[in-house]
Amino acid sequence: MSFIHEDFLLSNEPAKRLYHTYAKDQPILDYHCHLPPEDVASNRRFSDLFEIWLEGDHYKWRAMRANGVGEEYCTGNAEPYDKFLAWARTVPATLRNPLYHWSHLELKRYFGFDSLLDESNAPAVWGLTKEQLASSDLSVAGILQRFDVRALCTTDDPTDSLTHHKRIAESGLSTKVYPAFRPDKAHAVDRPELFNSWVAKLEAVANCEIRSFQDFLDGLRQRHDHFHQMGCRLSDHGLDFVYSDVAPESVAEAAFDSARGGTPCEPSDHARFAAFMMLFFGRLDSEKGWTKQLHLGARRNNSSRGARICGPDSGFDSIGDWDHVAALGRYLDTLDSEESLPRLILYNNNPVDNYTFATMLGNFQDGTIAGKMQFGSGWWYLDQKEAMEWQLNCLSNVGLLSRFVGMLTDSRSFMSYPRHEYFRRVLCNLLGQDMARGELPNDESLVGGMVENLCFSNAREYLRLEGV
Amino acid sequence: MSFIHEDFLLSNEPAKRLYHTYAKDQPILDYHCHLPPEDVASNRRFSDLFEIWLEGDHYKWRAMRANGVGEEYCTGNAEPYDKFLAWARTVPATLRNPLYHWSHLELKRYFGFDSLLDESNAPAVWGLTKEQLASSDLSVAGILQRFDVRALCTTDDPTDSLTHHKRIAESGLSTKVYPAFRPDKAHAVDRPELFNSWVAKLEAVANCEIRSFQDFLDGLRQRHDHFHQMGCRLSDHGLDFVYSDVAPESVAEAAFDSARGGTPCEPSDHARFAAFMMLFFGRLDSEKGWTKQLHLGARRNNSSRGARICGPDSGFDSIGDWDHVAALGRYLDTLDSEESLPRLILYNNNPVDNYTFATMLGNFQDGTIAGKMQFGSGWWYLDQKEAMEWQLNCLSNVGLLSRFVGMLTDSRSFMSYPRHEYFRRVLCNLLGQDMARGELPNDESLVGGMVENLCFSNAREYLRLEGV
Amino acid sequence: MSFIHEDFLLSNEPAKRLYHTYAKDQPILDYHCHLPPEDVASNRRFSDLFEIWLEGDHYKWRAMRANGVGEEYCTGNAEPYDKFLAWARTVPATLRNPLYHWSHLELKRYFGFDSLLDESNAPAVWGLTKEQLASSDLSVAGILQRFDVRALCTTDDPTDSLTHHKRIAESGLSTKVYPAFRPDKAHAVDRPELFNSWVAKLEAVANCEIRSFQDFLDGLRQRHDHFHQMGCRLSDHGLDFVYSDVAPESVAEAAFDSARGGTPCEPSDHARFAAFMMLFFGRLDSEKGWTKQLHLGARRNNSSRGARICGPDSGFDSIGDWDHVAALGRYLDTLDSEESLPRLILYNNNPVDNYTFATMLGNFQDGTIAGKMQFGSGWWYLDQKEAMEWQLNCLSNVGLLSRFVGMLTDSRSFMSYPRHEYFRRVLCNLLGQDMARGELPNDESLVGGMVENLCFSNAREYLRLEGV
Repeated sequence: MSFIHEDFLLSNEPAKRLYHTYAKDQPILDYHCHLPPEDVASNRRFSDLFEIWLEGDHYKWRAMRANGVGEEYCTGNAEPYDKFLAWARTVPATLRNPLYHWSHLELKRYFGFDSLLDESNAPAVWGLTKEQLASSDLSVAGILQRFDVRALCTTDDPTDSLTHHKRIAESGLSTKVYPAFRPDKAHAVDRPELFNSWVAKLEAVANCEIRSFQDFLDGLRQRHDHFHQMGCRLSDHGLDFVYSDVAPESVAEAAFDSARGGTPCEPSDHARFAAFMMLFFGRLDSEKGWTKQLHLGARRNNSSRGARICGPDSGFDSIGDWDHVAALGRYLDTLDSEESLPRLILYNNNPVDNYTFATMLGNFQDGTIAGKMQFGSGWWYLDQKEAMEWQLNCLSNVGLLSRFVGMLTDSRSFMSYPRHEYFRRVLCNLLGQDMARGELPNDESLVGGMVENLCFSNAREYLRLEGV
Repeated sequence: MSFIHEDFLLSNEPAKRLYHTYAKDQPILDYHCHLPPEDVASNRRFSDLFEIWLEGDHYKWRAMRANGVGEEYCTGNAEPYDKFLAWARTVPATLRNPLYHWSHLELKRYFGFDSLLDESNAPAVWGLTKEQLASSDLSVAGILQRFDVRALCTTDDPTDSLTHHKRIAESGLSTKVYPAFRPDKAHAVDRPELFNSWVAKLEAVANCEIRSFQDFLDGLRQRHDHFHQMGCRLSDHGLDFVYSDVAPESVAEAAFDSARGGTPCEPSDHARFAAFMMLFFGRLDSEKGWTKQLHLGARRNNSSRGARICGPDSGFDSIGDWDHVAALGRYLDTLDSEESLPRLILYNNNPVDNYTFATMLGNFQDGTIAGKMQFGSGWWYLDQKEAMEWQLNCLSNVGLLSRFVGMLTDSRSFMSYPRHEYFRRVLCNLLGQDMARGELPNDESLVGGMVENLCFSNAREYLRLEGV
Repeated sequence: MSFIHEDFLLSNEPAKRLYHTYAKDQPILDYHCHLPPEDVASNRRFSDLFEIWLEGDHYKWRAMRANGVGEEYCTGNAEPYDKFLAWARTVPATLRNPLYHWSHLELKRYFGFDSLLDESNAPAVWGLTKEQLASSDLSVAGILQRFDVRALCTTDDPTDSLTHHKRIAESGLSTKVYPAFRPDKAHAVDRPELFNSWVAKLEAVANCEIRSFQDFLDGLRQRHDHFHQMGCRLSDHGLDFVYSDVAPESVAEAAFDSARGGTPCEPSDHARFAAFMMLFFGRLDSEKGWTKQLHLGARRNNSSRGARICGPDSGFDSIGDWDHVAALGRYLDTLDSEESLPRLILYNNNPVDNYTFATMLGNFQDGTIAGKMQFGSGWWYLDQKEAMEWQLNCLSNVGLLSRFVGMLTDSRSFMSYPRHEYFRRVLCNLLGQDMARGELPNDESLVGGMVENLCFSNAREYLRLEGV
């Protein structure tokens, strides 16, 4: 039997029925990813497996380094084929790592490759995939069609002109492609050079002059408006932890002015400035009915050597152990108290925080919107079977699984759509197991209805993207 | 087959035998709950499902809010039936939440209702339960008899006169009903108004004048004595974390005097005052051979809006992420060093703390009493199947499960007694699974004997309540 | 069927095949233990079960105390037989504790005892084991041969003369016995008396005078060299947490001089001094290609009473809840930045830290050595089935299980070798379960090859001990 067979991950009978009847054919709403909109606009084709699969994948680089593969074959100057070969050699060493599942699922769904990748078949795999990649089936548009992707939301800087999104909207692509607003750089008053070059971009794209803090806020609001016009309904923040000790406006203004003048703000004011901004962004999202996403707890750039050689986002990030609860509670409560708390999805990167996060979110369910506060799907190191089960179980135990908006790829690669299939199999396996044990009623349509909602409908209703 | 069938949660053969032979018929000793003693004294009858089931249940309110149900139907002014209907509509959305299990188990054991509650059968359920509630079978005394509750311990403020307990004791009720001593308000020297009104109550009930810190301690000791005479053998403290940085008596006295004079104590002295009091209470418990209960780690009242609209204990509490270990160790060691460490049950609200708590307790097992230091059953958000298993597994792995005093309801509702059944099923399922896998010896009487002890005998021997 | 039968812990068919074909007959490389080298050098024989099994076992003492057994029978003056009897009485109370498994596995593998130990058969067990212990089969050399221990590494103070290791090396014992370098006492500039008596030992064994900080470092380096000559290839540090805020050399020197003069260093300088030393030791290990072991997170000596009565390491230690991540990252990055980061095995004592530790290690896999940064096997309270699975699953999910160096006993007793068998059974059970569920390919030689590597080969290749 193939490793990736029809009932992959479905270890019980109810799970098989749930998956094949209720989950499998649901469309995809990929509401958070890092795909380059340019590739969608140009309907990119990929010349080989390196381009579509390895080019930017820090998960694979980490695995290769841990397997004793030199940097040359990870982020370095080796030839694409040699890099692929190094990866193929590493694959058998990843047994039990999610990469082993993901890789084989992806090779099967994109190329029909049905064996176990290793050094011996690497040359053949390189050849057969190269051939298939040349066909329009595996252009970006072909891929989106194959996986029935109804909508996807990229992740975009406020200074992005969104011209690619405009082109996509005009192209008649059946997949809706919307931007998401990620203003992390707006906090950088501790690094004036970075901050000012970013403000310059903001001035250019917003076609305004930013001479005061108020101008800055106005410029950001203008971009928020523009993103909204382009169909954006989500914002996103990638933070170590929530900033919630809010500077008075005068202090925030002083920090801004200092940075604009080329001097870092007082160190103690940076977090307070960021907290001021987080409230500002929260209000913007709330006014427009957007959904705010918070990605908390990644500890980035731990290796100075890695940063020097490879730059950021190249596999030297890990999980932090900050105490989040007090600050998270304060942030949510401040917005809630002024009736400016938007829909919110909180993603967690440390399994230790599952229960505290999920219960804190429950404090701000206000009865206006079903599932208003969402405990997001397992993120980064937690985006694997065991940790997805932890997230699902935690949400089930202290919240309402039935209101969950479900899976997203969070990916930089167009080969990640099977992640939705993976999630659905894990979900159905878990629910089916409960049915088999009598922990859920043996009522397939009751449980199956919930499965359908978790695959697509909940996200559609919750996010309210136009035309989806 | 019914959802709640004979072998509900019993997924293997040894589990079924353990449950039906050793667990099922054990009586109940509910040594910690929040039932109103007045209801027992008056042998209250409940006019409808709202009164007996929904009236004070913050678990259900949280679920309803998360399901988009307005506050009117949770804690607000809607009619009882409409609130019940809102809950019935929410029930199918709670699939996989413990409420789904609890609710159906309760409806079956109290009313014989054997379907799945939802909007469609809500009217019928309202009707049939109303009828049954009118019979004496479901008066408080009827309920206590039905579930073979041999004893229950309420949770009482030292200023409570215990007149209801006196009436109960005189009534000849076969269930022993004892108070437990919960002096949390004695720490409130940071809030003079609250503190002084509480001290006034203490003066009244203890019939004394409290003019000095020593008078205060004497008054508390007098109440402790009186509780003891009324059969009390447990104290309880609900704390964010243990206070263990102890103020010298002169500082504690100054904090007391300040509060009595209407001025909050120095902020830095509040925790130290509380630590002083916690030592004082520890010594009282030790002198009388009581069992001290510590409930640590709940983070209460996170929503200002919730607090304003609904007040405390209405579903806006979650799990904290404090670092408990150093303070907990210091507190236990201080009492232990002066030979004043009482029997102690520590309840945990954050799964993250299971291993640190359970191993810290192990440091203070002193060989005098089997299971002297108890790692309490899964509390609040952890009072569900998965987290109960975590507690049982943790205790098993780093302590002695066989010495565990087992389950309690911790409930405000007379409909919670099936929680003991739930625990017993979870326990037997876990032990039976070990037997089926050969991880426990296939010796039913060996394991069954342990089951019996965990259901009732251990608690009876450990707590030494009179007449139980 | 016996409790400890052929397929103990192997709950599925692939697991049985993996264990019996690939794991069972692998030799043992016990690269970290606390066995006394003197006992190996003298080929000690044990007169009774107390000597070989109970004498120094703080796990058993904790269990006995929790079972209400007085200190006299734990660490006190009771007769050896009476202590054994107290333990035998406690054994049935340890159901589900790892002691229950370990004890019966040990009794079976050493003495062929195949029943369940309790008070009733204790006298017979005492007798039959006494008899067998008299034969050379159960001398130290006999035991090492029986369990096919190819090498073992003890844990040694730098001031140890290693004369026992010399005798062993000259004895022709087929098991290689090497020291490991554990310099924890080198940090004790906060306790001058302790520190100076230790420096005096260092002077004696290194045959040098230590008049300056530089002399001190030279003396330590000399011992490091000598350990290397004696075959040592591992260092070890037992720390609450990693010290990473490094004192400048002048400050470290001042702290040293202060302690040498009899005055504790400035309190704030102690951790910084230790951080300086940890860098120094890191460089030494890196220069010689050693493997550094870090044991983090135990919270020792929590009971003043216990410390007074029984001294350290007698069962009053538990799990700490320190936030390790920032300091750990800084330490590894500092060494890595100067290309002095040695091979490293990090052991964790708090399950909460599994994911943060494992991902932090991944940041420093540099592609030079496969599995350079090792997430060590479940330690102390985590050395039991459930927590071993957590470690294996965590490593699998965020690293490469296939490169893991596997199990060690960490034991003070010669009766602990079945711990390797226990680990192998747990490992095969886990992998077999994955195969049975289709989460691993149904390719026995692929998975079996990994099993073999995890049992022995990986450790041999990684540690590079001479003659192994």
